[in-house]
Amino acid sequence: MSNKEFKLSEIAKKLDLSFEGDPNYKVNSIKNLKEAGKFDISFYYSKKFKKDLEETNAGIVLLEKNDDTNSIKNKLFSENVHLSYARLSQIFEPSNDYLPFIDESSVIHKSAKISSNCHIGPNCHIEKDVLVEEGVVIKSNVTIGSGTKIKKNTFINSNVSIYPNTFIGRDCILHSGSVIGSDGLGFAKNGKKWEKIAHSGHVEIGNSVEIGAGCTIDKASLGKTDIGDGVKLDNQIHLAHNCVIGENTLIGANTTVAGSVKIGKNCMIGGLCGIVDNIAITDEVIIYPMTFVTNSVEKKGTYSGGSVLMEHKDWLKKIVSERKKR
Amino acid sequence: MSNKEFKLSEIAKKLDLSFEGDPNYKVNSIKNLKEAGKFDISFYYSKKFKKDLEETNAGIVLLEKNDDTNSIKNKLFSENVHLSYARLSQIFEPSNDYLPFIDESSVIHKSAKISSNCHIGPNCHIEKDVLVEEGVVIKSNVTIGSGTKIKKNTFINSNVSIYPNTFIGRDCILHSGSVIGSDGLGFAKNGKKWEKIAHSGHVEIGNSVEIGAGCTIDKASLGKTDIGDGVKLDNQIHLAHNCVIGENTLIGANTTVAGSVKIGKNCMIGGLCGIVDNIAITDEVIIYPMTFVTNSVEKKGTYSGGSVLMEHKDWLKKIVSERKKR
Amino acid sequence: MSNKEFKLSEIAKKLDLSFEGDPNYKVNSIKNLKEAGKFDISFYYSKKFKKDLEETNAGIVLLEKNDDTNSIKNKLFSENVHLSYARLSQIFEPSNDYLPFIDESSVIHKSAKISSNCHIGPNCHIEKDVLVEEGVVIKSNVTIGSGTKIKKNTFINSNVSIYPNTFIGRDCILHSGSVIGSDGLGFAKNGKKWEKIAHSGHVEIGNSVEIGAGCTIDKASLGKTDIGDGVKLDNQIHLAHNCVIGENTLIGANTTVAGSVKIGKNCMIGGLCGIVDNIAITDEVIIYPMTFVTNSVEKKGTYSGGSVLMEHKDWLKKIVSERKKR
Repeated sequence: MSNKEFKLSEIAKKLDLSFEGDPNYKVNSIKNLKEAGKFDISFYYSKKFKKDLEETNAGIVLLEKNDDTNSIKNKLFSENVHLSYARLSQIFEPSNDYLPFIDESSVIHKSAKISSNCHIGPNCHIEKDVLVEEGVVIKSNVTIGSGTKIKKNTFINSNVSIYPNTFIGRDCILHSGSVIGSDGLGFAKNGKKWEKIAHSGHVEIGNSVEIGAGCTIDKASLGKTDIGDGVKLDNQIHLAHNCVIGENTLIGANTTVAGSVKIGKNCMIGGLCGIVDNIAITDEVIIYPMTFVTNSVEKKGTYSGGSVLMEHKDWLKKIVSERKKR
Repeated sequence: MSNKEFKLSEIAKKLDLSFEGDPNYKVNSIKNLKEAGKFDISFYYSKKFKKDLEETNAGIVLLEKNDDTNSIKNKLFSENVHLSYARLSQIFEPSNDYLPFIDESSVIHKSAKISSNCHIGPNCHIEKDVLVEEGVVIKSNVTIGSGTKIKKNTFINSNVSIYPNTFIGRDCILHSGSVIGSDGLGFAKNGKKWEKIAHSGHVEIGNSVEIGAGCTIDKASLGKTDIGDGVKLDNQIHLAHNCVIGENTLIGANTTVAGSVKIGKNCMIGGLCGIVDNIAITDEVIIYPMTFVTNSVEKKGTYSGGSVLMEHKDWLKKIVSERKKR
Repeated sequence: MSNKEFKLSEIAKKLDLSFEGDPNYKVNSIKNLKEAGKFDISFYYSKKFKKDLEETNAGIVLLEKNDDTNSIKNKLFSENVHLSYARLSQIFEPSNDYLPFIDESSVIHKSAKISSNCHIGPNCHIEKDVLVEEGVVIKSNVTIGSGTKIKKNTFINSNVSIYPNTFIGRDCILHSGSVIGSDGLGFAKNGKKWEKIAHSGHVEIGNSVEIGAGCTIDKASLGKTDIGDGVKLDNQIHLAHNCVIGENTLIGANTTVAGSVKIGKNCMIGGLCGIVDNIAITDEVIIYPMTFVTNSVEKKGTYSGGSVLMEHKDWLKKIVSERKKR
C-alpha cells in the first residue's frame, strides 16, 4: 500500500484515458489481479491472465477496450496497457523525501560546486572540482572522483564509485554497487610480463540513463566510453573501455561487452551475452540471452546462439558424439 | 592455526562421534591431509586422497570406519565425513569478537530501533524506521534503507547496500558488495523511448540464508521477491524482480535469473546459468553450469546444456560447418 | 589533454627509441590518429588504421620503421609499438596527487600499523593488526579486515572490501567494488539442509597484480587462495575458494572459476568462461570467451567452445532439430 489515494476520475485524467464506472471510486495501491482487493487498482495486458481477470476483486482495472468484461465495474481503457501501467506505477510511487541536505559526515572538497537543493547522504566523498547540479540525490557511501560533472535530477544510490572526470547526464538513476570509470583491461606484453596502458579517457553518460546494481563501466584508454541518452542497463553488466552504446538500447543482466564495441540505437540485448571486442552492432538489433557475438551485426533483425537445455544423460551423449567427430 | 585447542575426546563428544587413540591428544587446527602436522586434525572423504591418507602426519584423522587404517593412531569415525568436517570447522572457527557496540561514525536515524546487543561498525547509514534485532552484526560502510527489518543473529559484511522495506530473516550471512532491493529492469515502450515502471514491491529473505559477495537481488515490481529459508547463493548471482527461490536451493556463482522465475525447493543450480523470465523449475532439480534454461522444468532430474571445450582449430571447423547448414 | 608537455627528443630518450624530425617539437597529449592534432602524439600498430595514418594531423607519430611514411614529419620508431605506446601512456599520465595523509573520518584501530607516507581517504575502516607499508593509497569507503597486510605502493580504489587476514603484495591495483576474502560456497548436506563449512583460510595476492572492478575472490576453506605475481583480472571475475592462478595470467571479464581450480602461468582466459571445480589448466593456455571448461587442460594451446551467433529463426530450427535427435 502506498500512502496515496486517487479517485477513478483523477487517474483517468492523469493518464489521459477514458473510463467507466463510479468517478469517485477511490483506490490506494496497485496490485496484480490475483492479489488486488477493493481498494486496489489492477491491470490486464496478456491473455495468460484471463482467468485472473475474471476472478479479480480489484476495485478498478486498467485494460484494453477489446478485453472489456461485465464482471468489472470500474475500469480504465488504454490502447497500450503496459505503458499506462508504467505511468500508473509512477503516480502511486511514494514521494521522494530526499530534501535538500548535506550530511555533515560526508567529506566534500572545498572546490566542489554542489547546487543548493541537492541531497547528499552520510559518509560520501566528493573530490575536488566536482560539479553537482540542482535536484541531484546522492545516497550514502558514494565516492565521486575529481572533475566529475553530474547534471540535474540524477539519483545515485549507496555504495556507487565514480572515478575522476566522469560526465553523467540529467535524470539518470545509478543503482548501488555500480562502478563508473575504472581502468580498462589494457596491457602490452613485454616478454611474459604485462605493462599497463595508462587510461587517460573517461566515461560519458547521456540523459535519462538507468544503470543497474553492480554494473562496471570502464573509462576509455583515450577519448571516451559513451553511453547514449535513454540507455537502460540491467544489473551486473560490464562495458569495457571505449564502448559506444546507442540511444534507448536496453541490455540484460550480466552481459559482458568487450573493448571498443559499438552498439547501435534501440537495440535489445539479452542477459549473459558475450560480445567480443572491436565489432559493431547496427541499430534495432535484438539478441537473445547467452549469445556469443563474435562478429559485427550489420543487418537489423533478431539473433540468437545460446545452447539448449537437455537432460544431463542426453547432454553426455551429445558431447561424446561431438568429440568423436573431431 | 586457530587460537583454540581441543582434546580428541572433547571433539568426539562435540561431534557425537566414536574415536580411537589417546583421548587426551590435543590439536589446535584443521588442515588438509598433506599439510597437517602433529598438532592438526585432518579428514578423509574421497578415494582421490588415499595416498595423502597413507602419508599424512596429522595428529588426528576424521574418516569413515570402512577407511580405517593402522597407520593412523588417533581417529574419529563418522558415517558422513563431509558433514562432520563442516561441524569440526565450526568448532575451530575463531570466536566472533563483535561485541555489542555502535560506532559513533555511523549515522542512525532516531526512529530506527537497534537492539542493545548489536554490533554496528563504522560509517554505516541506517535510515528511518529500521528494526534490527538482537545479535545482529553490521560491519562498515553498510547502508540499510528505511523500513527494513533484520531478524536476530544475522551478519552483514562491509559495503552491503540494502534498499528500503527489505525483510531479512534470522541467522543470515550477507557478504560484501551485495545489493538487496534494487529496482528491476521494468520499462514500457513509448515509441522508441522507455518509460520506467516504478517498483513498489520489496525483497523478503528467509532464515539461514547465505548471500555471496557481489550478488544483486531486485525488489518486486509489485509484491515481493522471495528467497526461502536455507537458500545458499554463491557470489555475483543476479536475481531479478519477483523471483521466488524455494527452501535450501543452492545456486552457483554468476548465474542470472530473469524476472518472475520460480525455482523450487532443494535445487542445485550451477554457475553461469541463464534462466529466462516467467518460467518455473520444480523441486529437486539439478542443473549443470552454463546451461541456458529457456523453458519450465517440470520433472525432477538432472539437466545440462553447456557447450563443449575443444581445440580452437576444431571449433573453427565446427562453426563453419554449422553456418553452412543454414 | 594531460597537464604535461614533452619534446620529441625527451620522449625518444624516455622510451629509448630513435626518432626523426624536429627534436624540440612539443606535444602535450596522446590521441588516436583520427583525433590527434598538432599538439598531440599518436601511434600506429595495425594495418586497419592505414588510412588514418595517411590523414592524421598528429604532431608526432610512434610507428614501426617499416611503416614509415613521408607524410609524417616528426616520428618515433619502435619494434614493438604496442609496448612503446603503453610506456608513452605512462609518461603522460597525470601525476598521482595522493599526498601522505590520513583523513580523520576514517576509523583506524590503534593496533594497525600505517607507514608514514600512506594516503588514506575518507570513511575507511581499518581493523586491528593491519599492516600497511609505505606508498600505499587507500581511497574512500574501503574496509580492511583485521590482520591484513598490504605491501608497498599498492593502490586500493573506493568501496573495496577486504576480509581479515588477506595478504596483498606490492605495486598492486584493486579497482572499486571488489571483494577479497569472502567465504567460499562451502556447505555439507544434513538431510535437505545445508550446514556451513567455516572458512579458516585466506587470500594471498602477489606483486604487480591488477584486480578489476567488482571482482570477488573467496578465501580458502583451509590454506590459501593464491593469485600469482603479475596476474591481471578484468572486471566482475569470480575466483572461488582455493583457486591458484599462475604468474602473468590474464582473465577476461565475468569469467567464473569454481573451487580449487589451478590455472598455470602466462595463460589468457577470455571473458564469460566457466571453469568447473577441481581441475587444472597448464601453462600458456589460451581460452576464447564463453568457453565451458569441464576438464583439465594438460596441453599448451588454444581452446574454444562458445556457441555461434545466428539469426533467431535459424536458431529455432537448430534447437528443434537437436531435440528431435534425442
